[in-house]
Amino acid sequence: MADLKSAFLNVYSQLKSELLQDPSFEFTDDSRQWVEKMLDYNVPGGKLNRGLSVIDSYRLLKDGKELTQDEIFLTSALGWCIEWLQAYFLVLDDIMDSSHTRRGQPCWFRLPNVGMIAVNDGVILRNHITRILKNHFRGKPYYVDLLDLFNEVEFQTASGQMIDLITTLEGEKDLSKYSLQQHRRIVQYKTAYYSFYLPVACALVMAGENLDNHIDVKNILVDMGIYFQVQDDYLDCFGNPETIGKIGTDIEDFKCSWLVVKALEICNEEQKKVLYENYGKPDPANVAKVKALYNELNLKGVFEDYESKSYERLVTSIEAHPSKPVQAVLKSFLGKIYRRQK
Amino acid sequence: MADLKSAFLNVYSQLKSELLQDPSFEFTDDSRQWVEKMLDYNVPGGKLNRGLSVIDSYRLLKDGKELTQDEIFLTSALGWCIEWLQAYFLVLDDIMDSSHTRRGQPCWFRLPNVGMIAVNDGVILRNHITRILKNHFRGKPYYVDLLDLFNEVEFQTASGQMIDLITTLEGEKDLSKYSLQQHRRIVQYKTAYYSFYLPVACALVMAGENLDNHIDVKNILVDMGIYFQVQDDYLDCFGNPETIGKIGTDIEDFKCSWLVVKALEICNEEQKKVLYENYGKPDPANVAKVKALYNELNLKGVFEDYESKSYERLVTSIEAHPSKPVQAVLKSFLGKIYRRQK
Ligand SMILES: [Mg+2]
Ligand SMILES: [Mg+2]
Ligand SMILES: [Mg+2]
Ligand SMILES: [Mg+2]
Ligand SMILES: [Mg+2]
Ligand SMILES: [Mg+2]
Repeated sequence: MADLKSAFLNVYSQLKSELLQDPSFEFTDDSRQWVEKMLDYNVPGGKLNRGLSVIDSYRLLKDGKELTQDEIFLTSALGWCIEWLQAYFLVLDDIMDSSHTRRGQPCWFRLPNVGMIAVNDGVILRNHITRILKNHFRGKPYYVDLLDLFNEVEFQTASGQMIDLITTLEGEKDLSKYSLQQHRRIVQYKTAYYSFYLPVACALVMAGENLDNHIDVKNILVDMGIYFQVQDDYLDCFGNPETIGKIGTDIEDFKCSWLVVKALEICNEEQKKVLYENYGKPDPANVAKVKALYNELNLKGVFEDYESKSYERLVTSIEAHPSKPVQAVLKSFLGKIYRRQK
Repeated sequence: MADLKSAFLNVYSQLKSELLQDPSFEFTDDSRQWVEKMLDYNVPGGKLNRGLSVIDSYRLLKDGKELTQDEIFLTSALGWCIEWLQAYFLVLDDIMDSSHTRRGQPCWFRLPNVGMIAVNDGVILRNHITRILKNHFRGKPYYVDLLDLFNEVEFQTASGQMIDLITTLEGEKDLSKYSLQQHRRIVQYKTAYYSFYLPVACALVMAGENLDNHIDVKNILVDMGIYFQVQDDYLDCFGNPETIGKIGTDIEDFKCSWLVVKALEICNEEQKKVLYENYGKPDPANVAKVKALYNELNLKGVFEDYESKSYERLVTSIEAHPSKPVQAVLKSFLGKIYRRQK
């Protein structure tokens, strides 16, 4: 596993140096240094789960057979494309959310001399994906399928961002815009496609599969992605800050969190008033009132119930799948997230 | 011509309504309205020269033969993809430049309720290009060439933006970072590829040509694009504000304009001091000193000389091209911009 990760990081270095020598652009020294710094700051510093899972999934699809050097390189390159996609969205998301920190360091746009140039850096990150695909997959029979896949998933992610942004704009005026249905839609589009479906879809395409024949795999992974985001919302309030590595602020930030939509769904009129009066305010006293209400409504228990039902539903769907290797891929994903504490 | 433009605008309406019904995303009423408003505000309000020239170029490549309904639709759709690309870059550029107005109205991000959501709207605009291409070109033998073309040109444009942004950051501290070579590089990447090469390349691809065989066409169009931007820089200072439709502020804005790099190249030490002391300041007294220096250096004459030499060089290159229809395309472009006053 440590080996896999260091092999994966070596591929990052190779991809980066190709991008810094791209013949389609005449780099200056300044611009080459800028891009290198921007990449090192924003691309490889996450958990790399999405990227690594392309390699894992491909191996499982190949029935656990040892991968060739070429297969390791290509699956890693696709994994990095997903990490680049994530970096692109995170750089821009932090600007839109006026965030301060990301992965334990200041957000890229907060650095002196960067500022709004970060908008274009996001665009550059996005363009690197197509450069990487062109450099390494142009001759493959599935090249156009990869382009279509990344294009569609990017579109879905951007559309999810859009409804998140618009809903928050409206929600701040009127909490009743937040609903379970709207929450599901936001997380499905903003997170699930690129975090859960995309890595497996990349592995399937590389294994020669036609994605049109795998709508059921997509549905299961999207369902899993939604469950993952509900966990994220739960942990933001009820997780251990030392374990999750940050102090949640979803209540202060007026987030359309699963907790608040669930609370809105099950509360009585009096409790609803408490939510309307206290949700989305920075004062710890307001936050405490919201948390007290969450406890009164037993949201911990409601979540635990949601978690076990989701797990059962997912296992049933997975076991209904005709292919054992595909089942193995899906079970591996589910195993990594079920009852996670961080 | 009025007919052509109204047919072109009809295609916009069709493309827009397809995008608002895209089955890859579950629109809400709010988000559908948002996208429609965003598109109408940002996409069709320009001069549409780039988009219309795809149709013109394709007709010339077909030796002036009447186009079929299908050909008119498809060339228009590609033309709109270029207009969408432009809208994407302009929406983001205005954020990065803190601009106030664009095409006679407030910049999109300046509207109340939009703000930084405009960053994601830029991303949505970019994604619409791949949706349009997928909807209308997925089955064509040249589909993958179109994707590669748009991807490469977008990468070049974003890279040009990057050096523009970085150079201005450095130039504000040290004017000597501005040079003719750097100016050429910025305008070539930021403007020439998408404004001049891309429309013709789209027409060539649709006509069944392999772009690898048309490097000379690319070079001529990029050369023309650079000349076009030099004109733009010239008119910013020496054009008639009533004709060009705005009052130029390149001097105040510390722009890496052809005029300032030319002045830096030909001035003596004393004149250089004047530039260093007065360039990039908002006070009209400083601006007046820069303009006086431009006159002292006879930049009008220097520009006229540049303009006629560029014209001769371009005509020579065009006439050396083996294909008469391609010559016609290139001459048509050149005819539209030579000695333009706006
Ligand atoms: Mg955020
Ligand atoms: Mg956000
Ligand atoms: Mg969260
Ligand atoms: Mg600008
Ligand atoms: Mg700019
Ligand atoms: Mg200008």
